[in-house]
Amino acid sequence: MFENDRMTREDYRYWMTIPIRFSDNDMLGHVNNVLYFRYFEAIVVQFLVEQAGLRWDTDPVVPFAAEVLCRFKRPLTYPGTVDAGLSIGRIGASSVTYALGLFAGDEPQPAALGHFVHVYVDRQAENTAPIPDPIRAVYERYV
Amino acid sequence: MFENDRMTREDYRYWMTIPIRFSDNDMLGHVNNVLYFRYFEAIVVQFLVEQAGLRWDTDPVVPFAAEVLCRFKRPLTYPGTVDAGLSIGRIGASSVTYALGLFAGDEPQPAALGHFVHVYVDRQAENTAPIPDPIRAVYERYV
Amino acid sequence: MFENDRMTREDYRYWMTIPIRFSDNDMLGHVNNVLYFRYFEAIVVQFLVEQAGLRWDTDPVVPFAAEVLCRFKRPLTYPGTVDAGLSIGRIGASSVTYALGLFAGDEPQPAALGHFVHVYVDRQAENTAPIPDPIRAVYERYV
Amino acid sequence: MFENDRMTREDYRYWMTIPIRFSDNDMLGHVNNVLYFRYFEAIVVQFLVEQAGLRWDTDPVVPFAAEVLCRFKRPLTYPGTVDAGLSIGRIGASSVTYALGLFAGDEPQPAALGHFVHVYVDRQAENTAPIPDPIRAVYERYV
Repeated sequence: MFENDRMTREDYRYWMTIPIRFSDNDMLGHVNNVLYFRYFEAIVVQFLVEQAGLRWDTDPVVPFAAEVLCRFKRPLTYPGTVDAGLSIGRIGASSVTYALGLFAGDEPQPAALGHFVHVYVDRQAENTAPIPDPIRAVYERYV
Repeated sequence: MFENDRMTREDYRYWMTIPIRFSDNDMLGHVNNVLYFRYFEAIVVQFLVEQAGLRWDTDPVVPFAAEVLCRFKRPLTYPGTVDAGLSIGRIGASSVTYALGLFAGDEPQPAALGHFVHVYVDRQAENTAPIPDPIRAVYERYV
Repeated sequence: MFENDRMTREDYRYWMTIPIRFSDNDMLGHVNNVLYFRYFEAIVVQFLVEQAGLRWDTDPVVPFAAEVLCRFKRPLTYPGTVDAGLSIGRIGASSVTYALGLFAGDEPQPAALGHFVHVYVDRQAENTAPIPDPIRAVYERYV
Repeated sequence: MFENDRMTREDYRYWMTIPIRFSDNDMLGHVNNVLYFRYFEAIVVQFLVEQAGLRWDTDPVVPFAAEVLCRFKRPLTYPGTVDAGLSIGRIGASSVTYALGLFAGDEPQPAALGHFVHVYVDRQAENTAPIPDPIRAVYERYV
């Protein structure tokens, strides 16, 4: 739903630059597909820790991955860097969808587009729980 | 489109058992989300090598990942094994969609469901190319 | 000290077979060197959990890696399996050295040899601690 | 031989800063031991590509890992960065030993020390080969 081939760098609000590691390449000589999900994880986690102050080890309500999708457009290759971009796509009662894009070095066109859905869960009760208000406020700033 | 919460083991035609590695767990004590995509890759690659005789290093037409999606249902944990199941969902002129499921040990319900789209590409011309006939024939046996 | 080019399968007392994953290969077409350490970790952890009943999350005294060495002899390649072998090389007051070997499929000669040193630490006091007696007894059976 | 507990940042001649990834932590909450070898690989490869102009895919003589050792001193943890340091320890006819150190953020004391031995091999003949002169000249500048 969020993956639109015409999305460009302007469509993302939060950024992180990730150095590609030699070992991210696979035997075909490009960054392995699974690593794209590693980069998605990297920016979502950094966003939550840095912007929303999430503490996975102590917060009573924490997010769990519910769905992740990636559309691959162009190869990424070591050596180089990836600019990962994130915007908040949809905020529900207890779930949130991040729209994500990966861009090679200076490229305006994405190497990949995707989304990542988090569902908040009460760690004790093991039930879905409302997104905590301070985190919801952060999400709203990045829609 | 293929991810249906009611899908069970009977919905998959090709199987592979993957031992969970200690390092597949992340700091939250469960298999890290990105590893689910690693398991998807494992079964798709094994299916192609074993059933379709694909040779990535020499075949003139080879598949590239175009889209991968995973819906997470239940945690997987080391120690244990994952049964990965695969069926062919849709066969196009130059693309194919695999329906995928991951099941913990003896569980009838999936830990995760997803799909993986491959597009065939002429390695020389760098254009999409028709699925080679022998590979198409294999796909048809696993619909 | 334990790595001797003449070591063969007979020199190891505890075994584990590890399926090589497609992604273990690197862009040079063989199992990446770092993965050999992943296989070392796999057998050491499985030995401790299975034979010594170690519980990393609750035991008051737990082992920390102090030193790991690997000598690379022959390449390993996907698809295939690795037979990992372990023997106890030296038991000290609070440390233990595992002698490790990796063997491809049916090969009698090792693909790699190495050792791994664990030091036991009191989780609370953050000091080295004697190896717990029941674990020491297990180590002695695998010298 | 090169791992000396008194080695500090001054003992290394070539540097690289590596951002720790969330996924580098393992279920014990620190950077997994195997990742230290990933960081070793990262700096050795970058040194060879950047300083020595090595081309793994086309050079007729290429280096193979022969031995790697790591001594673990202090934990590394996400979020954070690792400063990896490298010096050339010993240059033989066809082999070279890199002395390596990993330092957390601003720490003067190493989190880990180790060495990495490369042996040069003629790709065609599959025999050991002398270190190519231009690469040897680079090594000598970093002793």
